[in-house]
Amino acid sequence: MNAIGRQYLKLNDVPIPRVGPGEMLVKVNAVALNYRDKMVVETGRGLPLTFPFTPGSELAGEVIALGEGASRFEVGMKVISTATPDWIDGLRAGTARTPAYQTLGGFYPGVLAEYVAMPEDWFVSAPKTLEPWQACTIPIAGLTAWFALVDRAGVRAGDTVLIPSTGGVALFGVQIAKANGARVIVCSQPEYEERAKALGADHFINANSDWVEAVYQLTSDRGTDIVLEVIGGKHLGESVQVTAVGGHVCQIGALDGWDIIAPAMPLMLKDITIHGIGTGSRKALERFIFAIDHTGITPVVDSRYSLEDLPAAFDHLGQRPFGKIVLDVAR
Amino acid sequence: MNAIGRQYLKLNDVPIPRVGPGEMLVKVNAVALNYRDKMVVETGRGLPLTFPFTPGSELAGEVIALGEGASRFEVGMKVISTATPDWIDGLRAGTARTPAYQTLGGFYPGVLAEYVAMPEDWFVSAPKTLEPWQACTIPIAGLTAWFALVDRAGVRAGDTVLIPSTGGVALFGVQIAKANGARVIVCSQPEYEERAKALGADHFINANSDWVEAVYQLTSDRGTDIVLEVIGGKHLGESVQVTAVGGHVCQIGALDGWDIIAPAMPLMLKDITIHGIGTGSRKALERFIFAIDHTGITPVVDSRYSLEDLPAAFDHLGQRPFGKIVLDVAR
Amino acid sequence: MNAIGRQYLKLNDVPIPRVGPGEMLVKVNAVALNYRDKMVVETGRGLPLTFPFTPGSELAGEVIALGEGASRFEVGMKVISTATPDWIDGLRAGTARTPAYQTLGGFYPGVLAEYVAMPEDWFVSAPKTLEPWQACTIPIAGLTAWFALVDRAGVRAGDTVLIPSTGGVALFGVQIAKANGARVIVCSQPEYEERAKALGADHFINANSDWVEAVYQLTSDRGTDIVLEVIGGKHLGESVQVTAVGGHVCQIGALDGWDIIAPAMPLMLKDITIHGIGTGSRKALERFIFAIDHTGITPVVDSRYSLEDLPAAFDHLGQRPFGKIVLDVAR
Amino acid sequence: MNAIGRQYLKLNDVPIPRVGPGEMLVKVNAVALNYRDKMVVETGRGLPLTFPFTPGSELAGEVIALGEGASRFEVGMKVISTATPDWIDGLRAGTARTPAYQTLGGFYPGVLAEYVAMPEDWFVSAPKTLEPWQACTIPIAGLTAWFALVDRAGVRAGDTVLIPSTGGVALFGVQIAKANGARVIVCSQPEYEERAKALGADHFINANSDWVEAVYQLTSDRGTDIVLEVIGGKHLGESVQVTAVGGHVCQIGALDGWDIIAPAMPLMLKDITIHGIGTGSRKALERFIFAIDHTGITPVVDSRYSLEDLPAAFDHLGQRPFGKIVLDVAR
Repeated sequence: MNAIGRQYLKLNDVPIPRVGPGEMLVKVNAVALNYRDKMVVETGRGLPLTFPFTPGSELAGEVIALGEGASRFEVGMKVISTATPDWIDGLRAGTARTPAYQTLGGFYPGVLAEYVAMPEDWFVSAPKTLEPWQACTIPIAGLTAWFALVDRAGVRAGDTVLIPSTGGVALFGVQIAKANGARVIVCSQPEYEERAKALGADHFINANSDWVEAVYQLTSDRGTDIVLEVIGGKHLGESVQVTAVGGHVCQIGALDGWDIIAPAMPLMLKDITIHGIGTGSRKALERFIFAIDHTGITPVVDSRYSLEDLPAAFDHLGQRPFGKIVLDVAR
Repeated sequence: MNAIGRQYLKLNDVPIPRVGPGEMLVKVNAVALNYRDKMVVETGRGLPLTFPFTPGSELAGEVIALGEGASRFEVGMKVISTATPDWIDGLRAGTARTPAYQTLGGFYPGVLAEYVAMPEDWFVSAPKTLEPWQACTIPIAGLTAWFALVDRAGVRAGDTVLIPSTGGVALFGVQIAKANGARVIVCSQPEYEERAKALGADHFINANSDWVEAVYQLTSDRGTDIVLEVIGGKHLGESVQVTAVGGHVCQIGALDGWDIIAPAMPLMLKDITIHGIGTGSRKALERFIFAIDHTGITPVVDSRYSLEDLPAAFDHLGQRPFGKIVLDVAR
Repeated sequence: MNAIGRQYLKLNDVPIPRVGPGEMLVKVNAVALNYRDKMVVETGRGLPLTFPFTPGSELAGEVIALGEGASRFEVGMKVISTATPDWIDGLRAGTARTPAYQTLGGFYPGVLAEYVAMPEDWFVSAPKTLEPWQACTIPIAGLTAWFALVDRAGVRAGDTVLIPSTGGVALFGVQIAKANGARVIVCSQPEYEERAKALGADHFINANSDWVEAVYQLTSDRGTDIVLEVIGGKHLGESVQVTAVGGHVCQIGALDGWDIIAPAMPLMLKDITIHGIGTGSRKALERFIFAIDHTGITPVVDSRYSLEDLPAAFDHLGQRPFGKIVLDVAR
Repeated sequence: MNAIGRQYLKLNDVPIPRVGPGEMLVKVNAVALNYRDKMVVETGRGLPLTFPFTPGSELAGEVIALGEGASRFEVGMKVISTATPDWIDGLRAGTARTPAYQTLGGFYPGVLAEYVAMPEDWFVSAPKTLEPWQACTIPIAGLTAWFALVDRAGVRAGDTVLIPSTGGVALFGVQIAKANGARVIVCSQPEYEERAKALGADHFINANSDWVEAVYQLTSDRGTDIVLEVIGGKHLGESVQVTAVGGHVCQIGALDGWDIIAPAMPLMLKDITIHGIGTGSRKALERFIFAIDHTGITPVVDSRYSLEDLPAAFDHLGQRPFGKIVLDVAR
């Protein structure tokens, strides 16, 4: 843990924050970690951070006090945070020159704390069917998969959805596609086959094989209606190859480099749509929570740590966990 | 002109074709050339051609006779061909493994002839406001720009549309965007500025300048709602940079290489949609023709040649014409 | 059975029909009846019928022979008919003045026969998971519910869908909404509660109660995302009242009179969309069949009759069956 | 002018309001009147008004001072109000049981004053190309027509749009449809023909004639793609009759009674969509303003009054003005 990291670890010594107008005081029960949090702590990631800096953008907690004029929630209600709080509904903020990258635990203060005081507009009601250590995983990985599959690609029963990974967004993708009645093909390392199928995957392809050919065969050449492209780079090109006529590729991740690369001809001859995806709106999160409570989607949590074990939790993030890493903040 | 070329040039010696059931005999008035026709003639382009082969996919002509059961048109009506005749409405044909590339003058017989006998479903009524030498340019370049801007990207009044070229599809794009009330920025070589503006372009950017910066300035950083990406390759990356939040990039051309390349982060953070475009449906062509007749869109034709001057016409295709090259077949 | 009815009942004496170009000979296994068939037989319904007339528009059968040029299927394949065969994909046919009402067993010949010879374009592959007596119920009641909920209203997981009936389209609606992850409220006569819930309904409201208030309470006032309005008339007005902001009403039936009536203010203040629905396209039917085979949707069949018992089957149609009435044609 | 009316007329005697946090002080230049303002003043319209009450919801003005934290605008900027200020983007507020009817000059304070202090989120930048007495007409009548035609019905070049009135929303509808390249048919009283055509209408039908038949003839039976239904009641039924297959009816007005009535069969057989419309979002207003500034749309103002002549202005509202009635507040 480097200098930046050391500074925020003292955060819990600070007193309970004061609640301003339109804000709520929220007691934090659990925080889910994202790889981005680790990068911010280790490198600052080029953000204009002020210290003491609090990282983290996904919390589940309980409303403790309401600031003047705050009326969306009542004391005692269970809430979770949004991660890109300016995006309420419709289009997100930003310009062509300067895309908005204004998230909690970055541009805005983070949530890795025992208490946070934040605008009431930054929260939504927690799913009724989840415990805090599950609910805290929804605002980024869960919402991103939901927004991609449901709001942008319009998944529906009978669609074939390819999930070429078993990372955090991908596992939510499996469950969300299944909840919408889709047929799900997961492509990943063979050691994950059993768990992917237990989660609902209809088919599993070994990512080390000729997986493009395998998708053709599984779909009788027709291809997939939607690919949740969480890898990016040249992998997008293969995703375009397996996509059906009129199909959708949701471009989410950049694990394979900062540039996406794809062959133009099949993209054009198959009328494919590529959607750039970066989380989603608060309105979409609320719809997702309806779906969670109705369909029984249960986030996959690999491990839970205590706040003191944050360094170990960050280490675990880099070791391909199967599901989310969560910090139990309140005990 | 090589061996393939020589074979089809004899075509006009053949007798008037017989009209089969469901077909129409059409007297050809004019044929528009596409660069693809030149490539097919010169290289065969890997297609399973049979000889004598007739190239060409865009005609304007007149119905001379109806085959048994043909009822969509009457003798004497003016018609134009569709270029991808299997695509009537909704989704086009093809599979993920084998995209459909079944066009006239390729998989299907071509139209560079004095008479053609083809299924009545392959034709639509010609625009009432255009001469045959103008109308014949609609089925590929015109329809592609229309399908991209209107059917896929949903252009509307007040949108800013970037047209980064002055090629055939691009010039239609300028007119179609204007007809829908958009603000049009053309980016091309400076010698085309005057003609682009005469065609309706609101702004012109020298393609040799820092055009990305120029677009930022013209749009107060907001960016463009739609880019008609007719160049492809790395140019797509710059198009993504200038695209507004929630904007659309229509990927049409592959002049700059067979792979498209773009930065992942702005694509994701700006919720951009990339549409792969390869012509459009017959239904879209019919809507486009309504729009032509109502708004007065007039195709830009650079030069007209007689059928005997086909080699010169093909040569001209390779020399950056400003608008379409047309053959006057009937005189 | 009246004069019109008597004429078609002789149909099975006629020889096996000849197969024309582009047609297929199909051995009929099962035919589903619709109330409209009964009306056509009893009254002619104003259609320009020629005798002997064959009613019926939904069959499941097997391909026996292929006419010249027919290539979409092979002999031995299981198929079902489409009901509005001109509607392949995209928009249906017709004009403002003369809506298209060209169905099998009406404008076109019907399917209540041991063999039919019809254009190959009028068929799709039968669901793999269904028996013929189940599959034959798909082309009208099933497709109508699918097209309404999926293609027009865009149902998705977590949506609340109101099905205010337990008729044929309604029961498919329950299953299709559930297959897409929705929460389903059925409103009908109390004797159907048990069967509706067995089919997947999450909630049941007695149609004789104040059901509008009941929907408000079940949804915490938020209302329903989609109503499958199979009753029409003034019932549409109540459907508008229970519909959420931004919600959809699919107008399908006219049981309560030929005019729909609804209050303008809630329609306008809640940004509601009303979709007029009359079956769906062949492409939508193919997507629906994917969904059936993947999700295990099983049509509800109330009773099966032999061809000789057609009069009894027609009588049953008028007695509020719970599910479809099917004729086993081949045995 | 009755008791309610008298109370607000003293408003201009009150001192300049204090600017709270997040608010702006705006000097009002012009206010457009709506018939609803007249009804609120005369009857209270069942709203829980407090006195002194200020009516009016559409203003054009200039920013005079910024409250603490207000940053969207700068002092000196020209702005116009939104009319339903809670609706920023995406879905509007409200529930099925209680639709939101929270407008300025009703639930919220009005704008018929020399100065207003209101949240900065309630404003947008004024069109650059309009004078204040023109710009003030945009937030309700203009936005409603824009939201209906562009956001909901998706008008595009070549579409045929029927505008069955020459009222305030209708006249904006003519201009907006034309700006998007549509062909416009206006149906109204014959004395308005000349002015409707001067505004861009391609065709005019006498509303006292058999206008349904006239639309069939003008469209060769095909019908209209979009109807801007500002009358409602039984008129909606005729609008459904003239609507093309796949067409849209935007239900906006309730001049002909509080219930809409339409025949079910053509609605269903033509796959028509009816959109309930009640103004639009702030985001849509911003897009509309881009379109105004780019296309030169100029609101039709029938008459301008001084603030003292408010009673006369209200009288004029009830006398079928051709265009908006505006009060010049600042002189």
